[in-house]
Amino acid sequence: MNKQSLGPKVLTLPTPVLMVGTYDQAGKPNIMTVAWGGICCGQPPCLNVSLRKATYSYNCLMERKAFTVGIVHKSQMRQADYFGMASGREVNKFAATGFTPVKSDLVDAPYAAEFPLVMECKLIQHTDLGLHTIFIGEIMDTKINPDCLDDSGKPDPLKIDPFWFAPEARQYYSTGESLGKAFSVGQPFMAKK
Amino acid sequence: MNKQSLGPKVLTLPTPVLMVGTYDQAGKPNIMTVAWGGICCGQPPCLNVSLRKATYSYNCLMERKAFTVGIVHKSQMRQADYFGMASGREVNKFAATGFTPVKSDLVDAPYAAEFPLVMECKLIQHTDLGLHTIFIGEIMDTKINPDCLDDSGKPDPLKIDPFWFAPEARQYYSTGESLGKAFSVGQPFMAKK
Repeated sequence: MNKQSLGPKVLTLPTPVLMVGTYDQAGKPNIMTVAWGGICCGQPPCLNVSLRKATYSYNCLMERKAFTVGIVHKSQMRQADYFGMASGREVNKFAATGFTPVKSDLVDAPYAAEFPLVMECKLIQHTDLGLHTIFIGEIMDTKINPDCLDDSGKPDPLKIDPFWFAPEARQYYSTGESLGKAFSVGQPFMAKK
Repeated sequence: MNKQSLGPKVLTLPTPVLMVGTYDQAGKPNIMTVAWGGICCGQPPCLNVSLRKATYSYNCLMERKAFTVGIVHKSQMRQADYFGMASGREVNKFAATGFTPVKSDLVDAPYAAEFPLVMECKLIQHTDLGLHTIFIGEIMDTKINPDCLDDSGKPDPLKIDPFWFAPEARQYYSTGESLGKAFSVGQPFMAKK
């Protein structure tokens, strides 16, 4: 089948819905929703998020050199969508949603107690790419609600039950069922040369 | 609920399953599966992928300054898993899976005809972060199979039907149903201050 050209679209799928937590100069906690981001290094463990300069969080991150990234349960989709629309310049998003700010004990940034999973990051570099600036943070700790662990004490993706964002379609989607074990289901091809 | 510390884990969810296509020095096409990556800039449209220096694709990317990123349908999970286990140094992964290499008409890199969605990228920068090097590419075009478009000609995420990877659990998961419209479902919170 011949492919159709769409022009240069930003269209990786699925795209995560990341809750970026920062403090402003006055110490007001803020959360901003970011879809452009993910893991970028295994050791040291690092993640990246991209923000526009115009956002309130951009300056917070530049000043405090720290941020958190929360992963949200699908029942928190409406709050997460709001965190991506409102600006911390004008409102206190924690007050508006009733979410509870918690100060990280490791980095100078807050997260919401209601997020099932949180990574606390120290900013290690940032690069201006154009409309967005990519911020890379070293993950100092990853914290999880105990009810999201499986029987062996490992994070259970289906208990965290995250949702995702589709660029272009501008829709949120749930996650589905387990399909198979990574580094395993492709094993039959290993015998072929 | 008090959170439990897991130590610094790389655990964004969902994590995409990206098919990174490159040519080696001799012109042999290769595909490597990468979970550390995503969109990092809206304008110019850019995406990032992180690779270990030890991989075959690392050198290919350094030499050719170009790569493609394919998104795969869940029916292609076994091939995608294989692309993440085998090394192009030892095998021809296209031959092993029967997938068809296509030379991008815009950048010096190949993709598989079987991938429903592909982004063709020109390398614009790379940074060594430790175990991984982050590569940032400008997306020159995004190509899609026409049967993955909806009635209005837009990419339909449920027709592309991608799957995702959960770090730590090391499992693949399917995507679920549409949950709601982004920049919309959070609207009720906008009235609150």
